[in-house]
Amino acid sequence: MRGAVMYGPGDVRVEERDDPTIAKPTDAIIRLAATSVCGSDLWDWRGINPVTQPTPIGHEYAGVVEETGSDVRNVKPGQFVVGSFFASDGTCEICQAGYQSRCAHLEFVGAGGAQAQYLRVPLADGTLVATRGQPDADLIPSLVAASDVLGTGWFGAVAAAAGPGKTVVVVGDGAVGLLAVLAARQLGAERVIAMSRHEPRQKLALEFGATDIVTERGNDGVAAVKEMTGGYGAHSVIEAVGTQESMMQAVRSARPGGHVGYVGVAHGVELPGEELFYAEVHLLGGPAPVRRFLPDLIHRIENHDIDPGKVFDLTLPLDQAAEGYRAMDERRAVKTLLQP
Amino acid sequence: MRGAVMYGPGDVRVEERDDPTIAKPTDAIIRLAATSVCGSDLWDWRGINPVTQPTPIGHEYAGVVEETGSDVRNVKPGQFVVGSFFASDGTCEICQAGYQSRCAHLEFVGAGGAQAQYLRVPLADGTLVATRGQPDADLIPSLVAASDVLGTGWFGAVAAAAGPGKTVVVVGDGAVGLLAVLAARQLGAERVIAMSRHEPRQKLALEFGATDIVTERGNDGVAAVKEMTGGYGAHSVIEAVGTQESMMQAVRSARPGGHVGYVGVAHGVELPGEELFYAEVHLLGGPAPVRRFLPDLIHRIENHDIDPGKVFDLTLPLDQAAEGYRAMDERRAVKTLLQP
Repeated sequence: MRGAVMYGPGDVRVEERDDPTIAKPTDAIIRLAATSVCGSDLWDWRGINPVTQPTPIGHEYAGVVEETGSDVRNVKPGQFVVGSFFASDGTCEICQAGYQSRCAHLEFVGAGGAQAQYLRVPLADGTLVATRGQPDADLIPSLVAASDVLGTGWFGAVAAAAGPGKTVVVVGDGAVGLLAVLAARQLGAERVIAMSRHEPRQKLALEFGATDIVTERGNDGVAAVKEMTGGYGAHSVIEAVGTQESMMQAVRSARPGGHVGYVGVAHGVELPGEELFYAEVHLLGGPAPVRRFLPDLIHRIENHDIDPGKVFDLTLPLDQAAEGYRAMDERRAVKTLLQP
Repeated sequence: MRGAVMYGPGDVRVEERDDPTIAKPTDAIIRLAATSVCGSDLWDWRGINPVTQPTPIGHEYAGVVEETGSDVRNVKPGQFVVGSFFASDGTCEICQAGYQSRCAHLEFVGAGGAQAQYLRVPLADGTLVATRGQPDADLIPSLVAASDVLGTGWFGAVAAAAGPGKTVVVVGDGAVGLLAVLAARQLGAERVIAMSRHEPRQKLALEFGATDIVTERGNDGVAAVKEMTGGYGAHSVIEAVGTQESMMQAVRSARPGGHVGYVGVAHGVELPGEELFYAEVHLLGGPAPVRRFLPDLIHRIENHDIDPGKVFDLTLPLDQAAEGYRAMDERRAVKTLLQP
């Protein structure tokens, strides 16, 4: 099959790879309908996460089950499925509590490299969710988005306790931040303030339901939010970047007793204990337990209630994956969909 | 009146001070029935918080209203009252949400020095809660405890989401930690693991409802908790110390999706962002909004449901305040009650 392999900074190649096979009785093999490039893949592309050897890459996926291991009960060949980037058993106490992304038997689905024609998904029963039937082609991008960026934005909004009557701030205007805007509105937030200085992203934020756009960053951004909220700060803040500046902006934008949901993968972040103590905000973040939200998200997509696929402003054949990375790295594209 | 003044490390003197007077129409003056020494007062005593000039000290109190300003409506002279160490207006959005310790018009009651015969309490209507009548003498220590250490331990337990079916770990065996044990059990926790290596404190923890005692600290303590919880970690962890070691022990003792309530005043703590991200625990802490819990706590004390006054293992006349500090500093006493 064809599959993307990361060789090092700025060097992604699509080449012939062995077709994946069932390795454990709990595995499933999927033929991908589409896959995509994640903001976190760019950490490798940019050399921030060192790549020490050629590594299959990609962890966002949706497609049709080709084959299942002998222990798989919940999905069967021919079904269209979506799954999270983390495989989870669905049965441990952590999964049962809804934190499948920290399952006791966690496996990274992306280890197999989802930017490919086929993918092995471990722990298929606890990981994959089937759609009602074969989805129309126009729903495929949204279903791929559900597998990570939508699920992650949604978790950010849930972790930030977005809901009716709330003012929500979203720090970060990448795909996750934009979909966090969508999530916050779907969850009933009254006001959603998107922090963005990029006109096309502002436009998408407004389409997804943002009520306000703030272009200032850092402490200027905090001051703008304070002014818009009677001096109190926002009830809910979603952090979708993962840097020291964005985390501090998020914490400082929340009112005491408010909630910060952080889903940007933290890189070099140190939270000062004393400031956090006196900020007195709820903090929850980490890798999104996308699996918790998938049944609901798929349902909303199938019903055309939401169209998260709009975050894909570049669609390329899988063989042009490198250009997809480059366009996102140079911020020419918000997010790239790859067609195997 | 007689009142304690902190002159510098190890130097607390009880001396003649001016009686407090009504400075604002929202003030009340209280004649103290008792007051006490807080673990956080020891930061001054030990020179960790620099004391640059002689400063009245103390912020834990209960007593009888002597006089009220012209705007005070909720309490009146002659009533026995308990209040938090932070004065709060009770009307701003932050207070209304239950975070009175971060009120938009916050004032530190302790600025007047509660280790004294009389105390001025600002924003009396939003700060003080009256008891049913004049309490019996045996309830006074518990009511003083409610004003800070009990309210703080209680907030830690609430922030850690302690409740039925939960396993709760308490890091710290000072008065706040011990009362967090009591709080967790009152809130219905199934199992409460007290981390303590001091026999008299272990005994008190057991009296307050601890089901298990763990003597290991740091990562050994974490390993012990993991072993006791099927490898998952605790559902709820209350941090009641405020150091880097205790915070990390707390975060690492919680299972993914679990809750850490931290109420030890943070000193020199830095939380590593990446570890926190992958720990995926809820974090909430800060100065306890004691006022939120006071009506309930007073009720439980009046009904003899709880006896938090047991944390006072040393009672001294106010004039011997210095000995009260010394005994706590040397860990000869858990907590000192002072009688004006």
